[in-house]
Amino acid sequence: MGVKPIALDIKDLKHRFLKKEVTVTIQCGGNRRSEFNETSRGNTSGIGWGFGAMSTATFGGTLLRDVLLYSGLLRPESAEQLGVRHVQFISADGLQASIPVEKALDVYGDVLLAYEMNGEPLPKEHGGPLRVVVPGHVGVRNVKWVQQIVTSPEEAEGPWQRGIAYKGFAPGVTTFEGIDIEGIQSIQEQPVTSAIVCPQRGSVVEPGQPFDVTGFAWSGGGRGIVRVDVSADGGKSWKTATLKEGSEQHSRRAWAWTFWEVELFAPTEAQEFEICCKATDSSYNSQPESPEPIWNIRGLNNNSWHRVHISVACNDEDDD
Amino acid sequence: MGVKPIALDIKDLKHRFLKKEVTVTIQCGGNRRSEFNETSRGNTSGIGWGFGAMSTATFGGTLLRDVLLYSGLLRPESAEQLGVRHVQFISADGLQASIPVEKALDVYGDVLLAYEMNGEPLPKEHGGPLRVVVPGHVGVRNVKWVQQIVTSPEEAEGPWQRGIAYKGFAPGVTTFEGIDIEGIQSIQEQPVTSAIVCPQRGSVVEPGQPFDVTGFAWSGGGRGIVRVDVSADGGKSWKTATLKEGSEQHSRRAWAWTFWEVELFAPTEAQEFEICCKATDSSYNSQPESPEPIWNIRGLNNNSWHRVHISVACNDEDDD
Repeated sequence: MGVKPIALDIKDLKHRFLKKEVTVTIQCGGNRRSEFNETSRGNTSGIGWGFGAMSTATFGGTLLRDVLLYSGLLRPESAEQLGVRHVQFISADGLQASIPVEKALDVYGDVLLAYEMNGEPLPKEHGGPLRVVVPGHVGVRNVKWVQQIVTSPEEAEGPWQRGIAYKGFAPGVTTFEGIDIEGIQSIQEQPVTSAIVCPQRGSVVEPGQPFDVTGFAWSGGGRGIVRVDVSADGGKSWKTATLKEGSEQHSRRAWAWTFWEVELFAPTEAQEFEICCKATDSSYNSQPESPEPIWNIRGLNNNSWHRVHISVACNDEDDD
Repeated sequence: MGVKPIALDIKDLKHRFLKKEVTVTIQCGGNRRSEFNETSRGNTSGIGWGFGAMSTATFGGTLLRDVLLYSGLLRPESAEQLGVRHVQFISADGLQASIPVEKALDVYGDVLLAYEMNGEPLPKEHGGPLRVVVPGHVGVRNVKWVQQIVTSPEEAEGPWQRGIAYKGFAPGVTTFEGIDIEGIQSIQEQPVTSAIVCPQRGSVVEPGQPFDVTGFAWSGGGRGIVRVDVSADGGKSWKTATLKEGSEQHSRRAWAWTFWEVELFAPTEAQEFEICCKATDSSYNSQPESPEPIWNIRGLNNNSWHRVHISVACNDEDDD
């Protein structure tokens, strides 16, 4: 059962391994938490994010797989024989997190030890000089300021991996008393999600006229977006959006979000109404209709239909 | 762009490669189609399956990856250089289907050329003497009576891969006219699902008394089941089930279903009521509440909450 700490040296990485670039969307586990707080189940714990706790960049660095495999540190056969199941990352500020060894060694996993972001040296606030980028996995596993790697039979220690911080509790759990926290799997991959970016809440559209709806969609584990449906009648009828930038990604390595747009028609009479969207990913998972049945005390993984309330303008011409 | 047909010989496979055994649940794309037909959107095309169009067995055979890799036929680097993106399977009866090359070459993908089932030679009706078993992928890709493998830049030909048969259409599509069928991704992995096996529809339980609910859950792509929630009040409140056989599977290679059980309490007064279940998988995808928003003309991938109507017995003692 080998626990092998590996100290990381950027110069060494750059010298020994080819640079790989990957465009990745990184999402906080608590993205869209605020929508949970508006349900009858009440407040969750944590920052009340809207849909903005995610972002996308092109990272450049060394493939973690290359380091493990070609330094003779770990390969699938030795991992199995030694009982190594997790690769842990330890940062300069002592944070620990880990990912399953299968993701680390996956030839199509694209896990990076990144020292560049959008073609520039990785800025300190984004984890420079060196951070882990784990495409398709929740933000917290993308450890910033990484200094050491440990291959281990166990997950990393600490609250971010083994504590309550990134565990998905059942809707009925309203206290941590009596709950077997370690028995609940740490969040790694996240579910399919989407959001309407325009129009924004409170926007006004012209009666009976077409208006554009735009947004993005993304799914965990590299699962590509195969379709986004948008409704102006609460889900009774759906119009399928056109997939734009991001839709050309490989359906199993779609690490970045996909943009979409669709034209809807406004109702003919003045009223407030709701538009909503739901995405389907390459495994044909889709988004749940409402946040209530997936509500959880930590407010994680809210991927319910995204709903935006807008209204139809009063048509003053009628009164002329 | 190499298209290389490989004729398969079982004796050769057994002689050259170690036997691998994998326990796999195989699900028809149209499982639970009948529930779509009961919605306001109306009938879909195909056999009106309940939840029984899936089954589980332990298959023994040669890893497809071993054949491709160690016969010098294909490895990740050569696939990329040659533009090979799919591995096609051709059966004795001329059926063709294919899977992405990443699944075929995945060291953790467990794709088999199977010649055994539950320790016996593979029966003819299950695809003997040789069939493909693609853990975590829709049934139709598990080609029976396989005779030939082709590595190709393209998906397999024919209706089962490129036609309407196993494509997921949007809810608004009610005719195939004007639809770009080839532009819609073929179904490979399927979404998370679960079903209540007991009590069956129409069962009668005792007023105010506890009763057991049992069932199974499964997800595509090897994603393990992390939780099953069961409700007796239409999803207002949930009780988390105990995961049984199958729950010990690796969270990224959970190819077989997981059984679960939970004790609920019947209402105290005679009435018909509904019990429903929803599962969450290791990517925290969960099941949509109702079949309407995922209805599709081919009736595929229905993974909405499974609902069973039962009733509370009249308590004759009250009348004594």
